[in-house]
Amino acid sequence: MAAPFTTLSEFQTVLSTLAGPDAEAVAAVRARDAQLTKPPGALGRLEALAEWYASWRGDASVRCERPQVIVFAGNHGVVAQGVSAFPAEVTVQMVANFHAGGAAINQLAELAGAQLHVHDLALDAPVADFTAAPAMSEAEVVSALSAGWEAVDPEADLVMTGEMGIGNTTSAAALAAALFGGEAEEWVGRGTGVDDVGLAVKRRVVSEGVARHGGQAPLELLRCLGGRELAAMAGAIASARARRIPVILDGFICCAAAAALEKAVPGALDHAVAGHRSAEAAHAKVLDALGKEPLLDLGMRLGEGTGAALAVQILRGALACHHGMATFAQAGVSEG
Amino acid sequence: MAAPFTTLSEFQTVLSTLAGPDAEAVAAVRARDAQLTKPPGALGRLEALAEWYASWRGDASVRCERPQVIVFAGNHGVVAQGVSAFPAEVTVQMVANFHAGGAAINQLAELAGAQLHVHDLALDAPVADFTAAPAMSEAEVVSALSAGWEAVDPEADLVMTGEMGIGNTTSAAALAAALFGGEAEEWVGRGTGVDDVGLAVKRRVVSEGVARHGGQAPLELLRCLGGRELAAMAGAIASARARRIPVILDGFICCAAAAALEKAVPGALDHAVAGHRSAEAAHAKVLDALGKEPLLDLGMRLGEGTGAALAVQILRGALACHHGMATFAQAGVSEG
Repeated sequence: MAAPFTTLSEFQTVLSTLAGPDAEAVAAVRARDAQLTKPPGALGRLEALAEWYASWRGDASVRCERPQVIVFAGNHGVVAQGVSAFPAEVTVQMVANFHAGGAAINQLAELAGAQLHVHDLALDAPVADFTAAPAMSEAEVVSALSAGWEAVDPEADLVMTGEMGIGNTTSAAALAAALFGGEAEEWVGRGTGVDDVGLAVKRRVVSEGVARHGGQAPLELLRCLGGRELAAMAGAIASARARRIPVILDGFICCAAAAALEKAVPGALDHAVAGHRSAEAAHAKVLDALGKEPLLDLGMRLGEGTGAALAVQILRGALACHHGMATFAQAGVSEG
Repeated sequence: MAAPFTTLSEFQTVLSTLAGPDAEAVAAVRARDAQLTKPPGALGRLEALAEWYASWRGDASVRCERPQVIVFAGNHGVVAQGVSAFPAEVTVQMVANFHAGGAAINQLAELAGAQLHVHDLALDAPVADFTAAPAMSEAEVVSALSAGWEAVDPEADLVMTGEMGIGNTTSAAALAAALFGGEAEEWVGRGTGVDDVGLAVKRRVVSEGVARHGGQAPLELLRCLGGRELAAMAGAIASARARRIPVILDGFICCAAAAALEKAVPGALDHAVAGHRSAEAAHAKVLDALGKEPLLDLGMRLGEGTGAALAVQILRGALACHHGMATFAQAGVSEG
């Protein structure tokens, strides 16, 4: 499906016209939940998840049978300044690893029964170093948003976006700092494991980027401080919303990109839950700012969509209980 | 396999002669993990889980293919005092629900690809009210421990124990208070959802039970304050250890029963991880006392083994990544 926008302004308009959850589905889920053979509330967040999923699918009877993981890869001009523990060529090498089935996300997508699609975005043309210029032109960011929009399988019933891009925790930190405020260093962590020297560089780079581009509208910040993979994730998450496909968010980079949507149009992420809390400390700050409590907290910090993919089974568990359990009447169990 | 004990003293001896983890398997897992295409540590607890699982299976190459959930049901004399929001007959009704496939654990065990076995333990003969007498005689507790021991499938490669027993959060609270100390009320919560009057009764009952039976050895406390389903869970967890089968612990009642093993012989739970943290607040206290950080924290408080079963996919994810990922050399990825 072709993206229904050709400028950032049109994308903003698309975001502002997205539909909300289905109240009838919510009511139906609640009515059934109250009859299931368990004390009220005893399944905790599983109950809320079943309700959330139905509300966005617009159907209280649906299961999650066709999840899609989409991994976007991009390269970053700031890498030349020494912000990463890995060289830039690792991005293209890891894309090959995704295609060969050897990465963590391959294993976790398969375990989740999810299709995995990988899109590399102009890896030989890194986005500009944001300390010197906007990372992307408007044409570039719209192209990346469109790539994300079009990558969503219209038949999917759950979407997770992941990324690969050496240097992209630096981009995410700058974007988050510009979106949410605070000192640059609060948003900077070690990413893939940068040393103290690299960490100091990363802080300076983020600080310079925010100083140069801060104060603009959220989608402009995505253009100036983001990367192609960040914009593509944002485009895919918006596309899922337009198709009533619920989203499980991944880690820091995914959530920083998603945050640009929420800051552009509050409520734009209502169809998304947080899959996990990354060990990259800034992720917790983004989740707090978004009001999203993650489903998992396992100290992961790999990206690729791994935290989101691992959380699929939690949603499946919620739906399995909601649809599969007997009611008190069916089972002949006293309600107390 | 017949249980190798006929007295509590013999069971204590069995516990004290259990073998430890396999150091060679640990070394092999670590060596492979260091070569996988990810930054070191980037899979967080998944890396530790893969190591833990291999260490108890004694084999660095094994997957988890035959998990077993065992649900034990028992009834409690203290229910007559009004400690539960549900009547005692719900225990037998829910056992029927388990057999018919209508309970939450049926759905979550199926989702986990686990066999589910249900054992009801003399439901028509509740254990004695522990405010008036020991809950069980030695013969009764040994019988329950043996039932648990023998319920473990020798071919299982992961064991989870769950329970059903109206009144058993009261039993678990008394056992935990007696094992770990502190005021009785710190260990008492609303269980399935008791009202304020019931909560006051529950606190008094737990307090009286601890006053009457406290200060004894851990397995005596299990006898005097536990229930048949608690003792059976303890027997199954010990049996799994003897067969080098790792265990995922469930909620408060499971962990209170398991804690009797750990207090009896420190290290007796080294083969067990905590599947989730229950909304029943005392569970967090038991987990802290056991030094177990749960894999999930989703506000569940249902028992039945549901929290443990939901955590199976986390372990599977850990093993899928460990065994399925390519090494840097295989994938031609630079190590940075």
